[in-house]
Amino acid sequence: MNKRIAVILSGCGVFDGSEIYESVITLLRLDQNGAEYQCFAPDIPQHHVINHVTGEEMPESRSVLVEAARLARGNIRDLAECQAADYDALIIPGGFGAAKNLSDFALTGADMTVQADVLKTVQAFAEAKKPVGLICITPAMAGKLFGAGVRCTIGNDGETAEVIRVTGAEHVDCPVHDIVVDEDNKLVTTPAYMLAGSISEAATGINRLVDKVLEMA
Amino acid sequence: MNKRIAVILSGCGVFDGSEIYESVITLLRLDQNGAEYQCFAPDIPQHHVINHVTGEEMPESRSVLVEAARLARGNIRDLAECQAADYDALIIPGGFGAAKNLSDFALTGADMTVQADVLKTVQAFAEAKKPVGLICITPAMAGKLFGAGVRCTIGNDGETAEVIRVTGAEHVDCPVHDIVVDEDNKLVTTPAYMLAGSISEAATGINRLVDKVLEMA
Repeated sequence: MNKRIAVILSGCGVFDGSEIYESVITLLRLDQNGAEYQCFAPDIPQHHVINHVTGEEMPESRSVLVEAARLARGNIRDLAECQAADYDALIIPGGFGAAKNLSDFALTGADMTVQADVLKTVQAFAEAKKPVGLICITPAMAGKLFGAGVRCTIGNDGETAEVIRVTGAEHVDCPVHDIVVDEDNKLVTTPAYMLAGSISEAATGINRLVDKVLEMA
Repeated sequence: MNKRIAVILSGCGVFDGSEIYESVITLLRLDQNGAEYQCFAPDIPQHHVINHVTGEEMPESRSVLVEAARLARGNIRDLAECQAADYDALIIPGGFGAAKNLSDFALTGADMTVQADVLKTVQAFAEAKKPVGLICITPAMAGKLFGAGVRCTIGNDGETAEVIRVTGAEHVDCPVHDIVVDEDNKLVTTPAYMLAGSISEAATGINRLVDKVLEMA
């Protein structure tokens, strides 16, 4: 039977949602490896909407679930319905949505609160000893999700790494093409666009993360 | 010197803009082949906004250029500024945006009008004998863009193929993993999500199209 992977999205667009390239590369690699995937997103409003041409906030409101559905060609489910028992592993691509919608890391740093459905879902996978892959900035949540001592990477940005250490996690520097694996917590992380200078560079590390998560699943 | 490819986007999301997977796979393959790309979109309002969860129209207005910028991580330019002289080839991914924003094919069929900047840009590449790649439903515009007798494919949908024939183009049935090449017009087409049942299936034909466009450029 094919492995089934849950993917949590946080909107659609690097500055206020899921990083699109990271999300699509993840889904493509899963499918190329014969795994089935189901996309989920929390049914909450986005923290804000960013004009991706100007970088400025737009005076409107959008739903994380509805915008994330664009990245799933409409095939998406409310994260509140996600049952770890139905899947073999979980992956969360990056983008500012992870730090603004799935958590408030971008606003509060080490004092962050992780969105309730995200916290519940990741902890259910962790308790079931099922592997979790976190991409780009999403490992900033690792300490809150897995507890003190969990090993992860967001690349080599010293300031962000220090904030991660304050949450109790251990940060390991890692180049863009590589992954960090915490075998005890079954957590796999990769820097992707925290370091990538191009889409193919991001793909090298993400492909490796997907392969490792599937191998551990 | 690396080949430089212009990519025209039509928004961000299969039902009212560019098909996201087709667009990202195109950019990834270009980058993996060492080509440089620049994304463009017309600076016009979207025909409408579709809720990708329900499929229903939303009571709001969005800009094709601003939404397409999500697919380009902000690095996008107004299509009105695109000069064929600056690029070696042009590719347009699919999605309903091609048939609602770049043209009105979805509404008027063979009587379609192609958006002015799209028409001008594609014809400039054609006159300069530079290759053009059209993906998914975008080849429906081929007759209007290249004139009578141009050979193209949208897969094997008989009804759409018949409408394409009414525009003067020659439709050739083609499986999802393959491409149709009109050597005289330097036009390459592939069905992608007109036929694809999965993201990796879409990638097979798109990768082939990108490789062929680069070979001809």
